[in-house]
Amino acid sequence: MKEKVAALTERIVPNGRAMILAYDQGFEHGPRDFLENPESRKMEYILDIAQKGRFTAVVVHAGLAEKYQSEIQDAKVPLILKLNGKSELYTGDDPYSPQLYSVADALALGATAVGYTVYSASKYEDQMNKEFAAIIREAHNKGIPAIGWMYPRGKSLTDRELASRTIKMALEEREHTNLAIDETYPIVAYGARIGLELGADIVKIKYTGSVESFKWVVQSASPTKVVMSGGPKTKTDEEFLTMVKEIIAAGAVGIAVGRNVWQRKNPLIISEKIRQIIFGS
Amino acid sequence: MKEKVAALTERIVPNGRAMILAYDQGFEHGPRDFLENPESRKMEYILDIAQKGRFTAVVVHAGLAEKYQSEIQDAKVPLILKLNGKSELYTGDDPYSPQLYSVADALALGATAVGYTVYSASKYEDQMNKEFAAIIREAHNKGIPAIGWMYPRGKSLTDRELASRTIKMALEEREHTNLAIDETYPIVAYGARIGLELGADIVKIKYTGSVESFKWVVQSASPTKVVMSGGPKTKTDEEFLTMVKEIIAAGAVGIAVGRNVWQRKNPLIISEKIRQIIFGS
Amino acid sequence: MKEKVAALTERIVPNGRAMILAYDQGFEHGPRDFLENPESRKMEYILDIAQKGRFTAVVVHAGLAEKYQSEIQDAKVPLILKLNGKSELYTGDDPYSPQLYSVADALALGATAVGYTVYSASKYEDQMNKEFAAIIREAHNKGIPAIGWMYPRGKSLTDRELASRTIKMALEEREHTNLAIDETYPIVAYGARIGLELGADIVKIKYTGSVESFKWVVQSASPTKVVMSGGPKTKTDEEFLTMVKEIIAAGAVGIAVGRNVWQRKNPLIISEKIRQIIFGS
Amino acid sequence: MKEKVAALTERIVPNGRAMILAYDQGFEHGPRDFLENPESRKMEYILDIAQKGRFTAVVVHAGLAEKYQSEIQDAKVPLILKLNGKSELYTGDDPYSPQLYSVADALALGATAVGYTVYSASKYEDQMNKEFAAIIREAHNKGIPAIGWMYPRGKSLTDRELASRTIKMALEEREHTNLAIDETYPIVAYGARIGLELGADIVKIKYTGSVESFKWVVQSASPTKVVMSGGPKTKTDEEFLTMVKEIIAAGAVGIAVGRNVWQRKNPLIISEKIRQIIFGS
Amino acid sequence: MKEKVAALTERIVPNGRAMILAYDQGFEHGPRDFLENPESRKMEYILDIAQKGRFTAVVVHAGLAEKYQSEIQDAKVPLILKLNGKSELYTGDDPYSPQLYSVADALALGATAVGYTVYSASKYEDQMNKEFAAIIREAHNKGIPAIGWMYPRGKSLTDRELASRTIKMALEEREHTNLAIDETYPIVAYGARIGLELGADIVKIKYTGSVESFKWVVQSASPTKVVMSGGPKTKTDEEFLTMVKEIIAAGAVGIAVGRNVWQRKNPLIISEKIRQIIFGS
Repeated sequence: MKEKVAALTERIVPNGRAMILAYDQGFEHGPRDFLENPESRKMEYILDIAQKGRFTAVVVHAGLAEKYQSEIQDAKVPLILKLNGKSELYTGDDPYSPQLYSVADALALGATAVGYTVYSASKYEDQMNKEFAAIIREAHNKGIPAIGWMYPRGKSLTDRELASRTIKMALEEREHTNLAIDETYPIVAYGARIGLELGADIVKIKYTGSVESFKWVVQSASPTKVVMSGGPKTKTDEEFLTMVKEIIAAGAVGIAVGRNVWQRKNPLIISEKIRQIIFGS
Repeated sequence: MKEKVAALTERIVPNGRAMILAYDQGFEHGPRDFLENPESRKMEYILDIAQKGRFTAVVVHAGLAEKYQSEIQDAKVPLILKLNGKSELYTGDDPYSPQLYSVADALALGATAVGYTVYSASKYEDQMNKEFAAIIREAHNKGIPAIGWMYPRGKSLTDRELASRTIKMALEEREHTNLAIDETYPIVAYGARIGLELGADIVKIKYTGSVESFKWVVQSASPTKVVMSGGPKTKTDEEFLTMVKEIIAAGAVGIAVGRNVWQRKNPLIISEKIRQIIFGS
Repeated sequence: MKEKVAALTERIVPNGRAMILAYDQGFEHGPRDFLENPESRKMEYILDIAQKGRFTAVVVHAGLAEKYQSEIQDAKVPLILKLNGKSELYTGDDPYSPQLYSVADALALGATAVGYTVYSASKYEDQMNKEFAAIIREAHNKGIPAIGWMYPRGKSLTDRELASRTIKMALEEREHTNLAIDETYPIVAYGARIGLELGADIVKIKYTGSVESFKWVVQSASPTKVVMSGGPKTKTDEEFLTMVKEIIAAGAVGIAVGRNVWQRKNPLIISEKIRQIIFGS
Repeated sequence: MKEKVAALTERIVPNGRAMILAYDQGFEHGPRDFLENPESRKMEYILDIAQKGRFTAVVVHAGLAEKYQSEIQDAKVPLILKLNGKSELYTGDDPYSPQLYSVADALALGATAVGYTVYSASKYEDQMNKEFAAIIREAHNKGIPAIGWMYPRGKSLTDRELASRTIKMALEEREHTNLAIDETYPIVAYGARIGLELGADIVKIKYTGSVESFKWVVQSASPTKVVMSGGPKTKTDEEFLTMVKEIIAAGAVGIAVGRNVWQRKNPLIISEKIRQIIFGS
Repeated sequence: MKEKVAALTERIVPNGRAMILAYDQGFEHGPRDFLENPESRKMEYILDIAQKGRFTAVVVHAGLAEKYQSEIQDAKVPLILKLNGKSELYTGDDPYSPQLYSVADALALGATAVGYTVYSASKYEDQMNKEFAAIIREAHNKGIPAIGWMYPRGKSLTDRELASRTIKMALEEREHTNLAIDETYPIVAYGARIGLELGADIVKIKYTGSVESFKWVVQSASPTKVVMSGGPKTKTDEEFLTMVKEIIAAGAVGIAVGRNVWQRKNPLIISEKIRQIIFGS
């Protein structure tokens, strides 16, 4: 099955480079993300960008994967099925994103890979590690790659009193930079490493603000491949494209981007620019 | 199985329009809902309304579905089996409505569709998303549609300090209107969209108070179909009928109504008026 | 299987009347209930009353059902196996009575019906509804009736601040009467209705203090049959017998009684008087 | 299977008398129990006492049962496998002793009976009742007896404000005696009765300080057999032997003793004295 | 299967001596452990040390075990698969390290033994005991040894008010020494004994600071084999090597060491010195 996993990973990361279109925001953030460009609420619109922008994969939850199964197949863009999800409506506790679908569901829906978010540092880290570990085992047994959204998050990250050594290092890094705590290299590298330790084929992580620090992150996760998470829309195209250049320089294989593409007026223009940086053509 | 799901959905939403009679209130609110019209405590009475009022479906829990299985069959009104439920007696925490029945139970009881309530924003959102996601997978695998009662509810909705962006938008909307927080469009649209993301065929949601805002809700859920929840009895027939007109204008396929029909002295008169608006005949 | 369930229900409710001997108190209250009449601690003594008093069923937990299986068979009194139970020793929280036995266990022990307690209004209502719903499904699939001990109980019942409409009505009723909150008709009727909604064949509930109010309770549960719970020993025989007369007048099918029989010096005398009221012979 | 359960019970309680050597303290209290007589840390030493002292059974957890399986077999002392266990290291909450092994594990390890501790009155009473009930069902289905360590314990036992009637009686009893709350007859009798109600073949319980009160305990549990728990080492041999005499006088079948045997300098001398009292030879 | 377990144990503990290379720190502490010697972040580097340093086993989580399966096989160093794990990012509660992999996963990945951490004294001790007990049963049924990382940890260890007798002894020991509470002999011996009681073949524990006290620990665990946990890098080689000498003198079979080897500039030099002490050659 290792060869099958490798072959499907190669579909998403052709020639060692990936440019993934993320579209799980309808669940994670809700329709407010579509207000900037109302067309973006439609799966047809997203699929059109994915196809014309030559993205190497598209990420959705099962509802859209099922309702647009034939359209996705026709578009010939590999599907990454996100297996867990949560809304932003409950805010009273550390995050937990429960597994909603199985690897078998993903295969039935025609997925090329499965995705799962782990909020390390959350009070519910244990449940998510457990779920993602089981998903990776099952995915690899069935010959399909597994991708980790590795996002350390939770009250512990800023609790000075109980801070572990990693967190002390992160708090110090934050003081020297203008990064949020979950963008500091000790935290991002740890999340990425957990992806490797659990057996993920690819990890999706935040940028740490510099080529040098991101290089350490990439090395900590290696041989698991690294893609940068696109994040909220930047003020300018340049701002976003600079990040893409830097993470490629640091050894990442590419990005998984949503809002920075489909919230813009002309998603295909920025898609083309991103493609130039990642694939050089 | 997709064709079978579509065919059964068509039974509940003939010609793209739905008029569903809700009768899960004995569980959800208790017998106090029957005091206004004591006859309404009887399933025979409800079935009579459903049949004579030409409702496109009736919603009950398993106890009534089983005890009146042959009467329901005779009435030829499609049955929607509600798979979860809770009383209003426990008030100490955010709501959780546990799954009580399986899709297999629903099929054994002759159901045309299954229903499930998701209280997004509740502390127990994760459990309900998990249960509803599994129900939808199983329902679609067995060729039966799934309907989501999408009702964001819980302390987080009004917690300004921890508010996510969606909640901030909702709190602002509430200030400009006389809507409750769970009737504002950012909240209702989010709940509806989660229905789509999870794969529901139909979502039942609250009215947002205006055609324009409800249009956005319907678009956020599309291609999942939208029915408005009837809610508590309005003071006048007009008040209720106006809402029905507005949600149809906004693109909804119809309503799921209980108290506004069977708490009235003559349920068939209002049923006929509703029918005129929804079906035009 | 419906015919089989009906036939076994008929054994417990012959001619539409039931007189059930409850003996789960050794678990629920402990040996202190046996101090008034020390002989009552013995199953042999209870079986003797059941047989000579011509009770239509006896209720026990699995330990006694198993150890006295042949004696129960010889006595020819139908057995109702109580599937959940709890002691009165833990008092720190709302009640939860966990399922201890399966429907299959009950069948293996020769039971004619299964029983289960639901403490609606408890923080753990969701778990009990879930367990009882599954028990009823399985019982009916295996052709055996299910009886609900429907006892709303918990802190929410008297929490004025968070009170739902049902609870507000109950608090008001309590002010006009000398009833405990869980004896008021809004609460008792709700518990009974949940029994119907879940599919119970018989519900065992508290008396609401008047024929009129209990009539509403019986109607709210109909067509599920209603038996009154005997409760703690009354000061006089008359006091108890009056209640029996009233609940029969209100439409209940009978009673499930323990302490008011076996705590008395001569259990057979009161049994005979109860029989006269319920069966008229 | 009833005959098989009876036959194996007879092996542990020959001629209606039992003298069981308990050796689960390494788990429950830790090595500190072995400091008084360091040889007692060794299973070989314990087995030698069991054999030469003619104990009717020995109690261990699965680790020792497995590592000394052939030695136990050679010693011809029936094995009682303890299926749950906990250390004394976590002290922050009411006790819960989780099931660690199955009845099938016990059979594979050559056990003659299985044992399980229930801390009634604990916040986790529900879980333990559930586990022990299932163990008894499975044990009896597989033809092996089940023994309950019935030890009510937890904060509720001394909570005057929320006290149930049993607890009020126990608090009163404590005032008249020098007993700990979990040694008073209302509490011990309740624990023993739960053993009967769940179907245990034998219960192991604390002494209540007098023949008369223990007689009530034995009667409350009957026909389940009662053995007294040996408890911590008494100051003198006499003190312990007096208790043994009293519980036999009260109707118990014998004792399950550990520290009062193997913490003494010459365990075989006291074993012989105990034997004389219990078996009269 | 006992012979198979013994044979595989012999591979890890040849001639009764063990020298295990631990490499689960990428998960447990994160990449910060690799900063001292950046090469140590690479599995290739670790495997090279394991092979050239003639370690008797290497410990990793499933991600590395899978990605380097053929390299591990080529290196001919027995693999111990760690079945549970946690990061140091969540600090808000007593530790729980959830089971992530099954014994079957370990066999599929070519493991010679499985490992599991039990944090006795944690609020979650019950879950870990349960998981480890089941792992040992399954491992032994499948013919593979099980190794316990026995690390008592949690708030209870220093809670004087609720302290059990073991904890009181530990608190006293701490006052006489410069040991942390989880290094005192009452705590370490208890953890080790739980390993025996659960059936572990080998336990990995902390050093208690003296030959005499560690002898008691080894005796408390016997016949389960004891290896000392290497812990954080000591200031000098001598400091570490002295500990190794002492634990061997106390009867331990060897050590499981990570940072004290691969954080040093020349890991092979200290490996050779350790080998001399443990194997004498």
